[in-house]
Amino acid sequence: QNALLSATGTTVFTVMSALAVQHGAINLGQGFPDYEGPEEVVRAAAEALLDNRNQYPPLTGVPELRTAVAEANRRFYGLEIDPVSEVVVTSGATEAITACLMAVLDPGDECVLIEPLYDTYLPVVRMLGAIPKLVRLTPPKWELPRAELAAAFGPRTKAILLNSPMNPAGKVFTAAELAFIADLLQRHGAYAVCDEVYEHLTFDGWAHIPLMTLPGMRERCMRIGSAGKTFSLTGWKVGYITADKSLAPNIAKAHQLLTFTTPPNLQRAVAVGLNLQDSYFAGLSTTLQAKRDRLAAGLSALGFGVLPTQGSYFVTADFRPLGFSGDDVAFCRHITEEAKVTAIPVSAFYAPGEGVPNHFARFAFCKADAVLDEALSRLAAWK
Amino acid sequence: QNALLSATGTTVFTVMSALAVQHGAINLGQGFPDYEGPEEVVRAAAEALLDNRNQYPPLTGVPELRTAVAEANRRFYGLEIDPVSEVVVTSGATEAITACLMAVLDPGDECVLIEPLYDTYLPVVRMLGAIPKLVRLTPPKWELPRAELAAAFGPRTKAILLNSPMNPAGKVFTAAELAFIADLLQRHGAYAVCDEVYEHLTFDGWAHIPLMTLPGMRERCMRIGSAGKTFSLTGWKVGYITADKSLAPNIAKAHQLLTFTTPPNLQRAVAVGLNLQDSYFAGLSTTLQAKRDRLAAGLSALGFGVLPTQGSYFVTADFRPLGFSGDDVAFCRHITEEAKVTAIPVSAFYAPGEGVPNHFARFAFCKADAVLDEALSRLAAWK
Ligand SMILES: CSCCC(=O)C(=O)O
Ligand SMILES: CSCCC(=O)C(=O)O
Repeated sequence: QNALLSATGTTVFTVMSALAVQHGAINLGQGFPDYEGPEEVVRAAAEALLDNRNQYPPLTGVPELRTAVAEANRRFYGLEIDPVSEVVVTSGATEAITACLMAVLDPGDECVLIEPLYDTYLPVVRMLGAIPKLVRLTPPKWELPRAELAAAFGPRTKAILLNSPMNPAGKVFTAAELAFIADLLQRHGAYAVCDEVYEHLTFDGWAHIPLMTLPGMRERCMRIGSAGKTFSLTGWKVGYITADKSLAPNIAKAHQLLTFTTPPNLQRAVAVGLNLQDSYFAGLSTTLQAKRDRLAAGLSALGFGVLPTQGSYFVTADFRPLGFSGDDVAFCRHITEEAKVTAIPVSAFYAPGEGVPNHFARFAFCKADAVLDEALSRLAAWK
Repeated sequence: QNALLSATGTTVFTVMSALAVQHGAINLGQGFPDYEGPEEVVRAAAEALLDNRNQYPPLTGVPELRTAVAEANRRFYGLEIDPVSEVVVTSGATEAITACLMAVLDPGDECVLIEPLYDTYLPVVRMLGAIPKLVRLTPPKWELPRAELAAAFGPRTKAILLNSPMNPAGKVFTAAELAFIADLLQRHGAYAVCDEVYEHLTFDGWAHIPLMTLPGMRERCMRIGSAGKTFSLTGWKVGYITADKSLAPNIAKAHQLLTFTTPPNLQRAVAVGLNLQDSYFAGLSTTLQAKRDRLAAGLSALGFGVLPTQGSYFVTADFRPLGFSGDDVAFCRHITEEAKVTAIPVSAFYAPGEGVPNHFARFAFCKADAVLDEALSRLAAWK
């Protein structure tokens, strides 16, 4: 059997969700809402099943959705995208990330990855025979270490994988940080896979800036969006890639080898979602910001050292002030078993090694207010 | 950009479907029905959207579907499968094939492939850094060349990828052929990825035999089924893998890197489908057998040298008796443009090289009778 996979653990999200079920814990681990997406989007998906379009849609997606993705690029970011040749729909953002990496990386190429990172990045880069170059951000500030980032680029650098808004850090990359990255990409002729699944989940006036909007970046970026995150329907697994027409063909061919197509009824419903009025998108971030505040305030009151969250579904919190002496893996297991509340250890977002932060837990706040309150009171009772 | 993908063409199915649209041709190319799947299955998918289960399902699939897959293995083949540890649901059979190959192949391993083959097999094996060993079946007999197959196995053989019922040959592998393959697998300690998407589409009393049911094969086979093909809903992209508990974990980890999960409403509807009565499955093959006969008789009457089809959606036909002097690629373009009927050149199922059969076209018969009749009369008018 494949050695790399044999050595890879089952994803921490699945492990912790299973542990939550086993202990009857409130699951603030894996990042999915416990509420449903917009009613009109769900209804559109149900209706679209009934009008005779259940066979293979086009490889790159149904025209309605490709048009809606192009239109959303214009509306939110001023990007002019051709829906026919510059959009590829995938079966979720996970597939999109794998397809974009496949599209550009050759064996032996180097790919810059920024820790903390989502747990498919590293094994996918390795599976493709490429060489990951890790650059580490650490709490509490999650500052981009510019010198280290520059040093990670070299003659064999083919790509960077950039996640902004960033999971689990809750960091939204600034215009200045993005300009620094863009300059490195220009100088090294490298591509960027931009995992922007939390693009519409930003708070306090923080605006997500796609790297693709920076000068010279239009042809270098593969920008990934997620219907699951944007419409609170994480099970649907509809993702979309925006990429220059010089890149989209290879992405489409990777998609062809990975899943070939994505269910047409869900695609058509996501098109309805992307065409919703601005108030939907504003409401989404307002609602989530209130949930973030609710959870962050509650954790602070319990004594956690809560870090700021500019975007995403997550707050990270230092648990040392509570007097817990074990590491973050022990802490997350402990509160699952004892407090019946589940979180994800932040160290799971780092490759094993020296100096990995191991005293922060990640809590998802994309839950009903009553669930957040109950989690907080369970933690209070346990403490 | 990735050299392998840059050198790979867009799939012939997409190319020919686009050409069909461009010329207003009846598309007997890409294998998808022009009728809908069972009403109760489609309705179940619509209803399943409305009851609050639209977030990430478990990594390996919803319990309902894993149980239904295990039950179908027992009912159709007498296989005892544990639904918890031996079933992995994927976003279609394409993902399933890629995931199974990923699960076992290491770079440098050899993988035996049998031509004619589906066009993702070869690039996926190469993408994983493994070495394809091709064994060729040719029309009109599609006989398994036993000595060549045995010679393709060696000390570095890790797996074979076997498609039965076989596309485009319409061949159902016999018990004797499967026993020969099983013996090779045993002697070389190799695995089999079994692409059995046409398992329920067999004719004239030909019964599909999963390689997995042969002695010693229970632990060596990864058996792939397709809801798209079994329920005439090719756009849904729900596949399912049956594999021993020693293999399923690596397959699940591959799935985690490729798509992570598959839409829960579609999974639940497919469970309804797999639990349909025997009459559904019998009716499916009876209906398709009549369509095969209709198209085969019509093509024969026009002078084509039609080969027998034991299973699948396809008939292959020699067009030389019609006096067409070009190769199969030219023929399929020609009839698309001139007769307004599209077929797929059989040479597309072979790696480029000497001796590839180039005078057969593949016609899909999974179409309404009126469409088959119209295609035949267009061909008659053109001839
Ligand atoms: C695909 S499971 C993980 C969901 C997620 O994005 C997260 O929890 O970080
Ligand atoms: C996934 S597109 C191809 C469909 C098919 O199985 C075929 O036409 O052979």
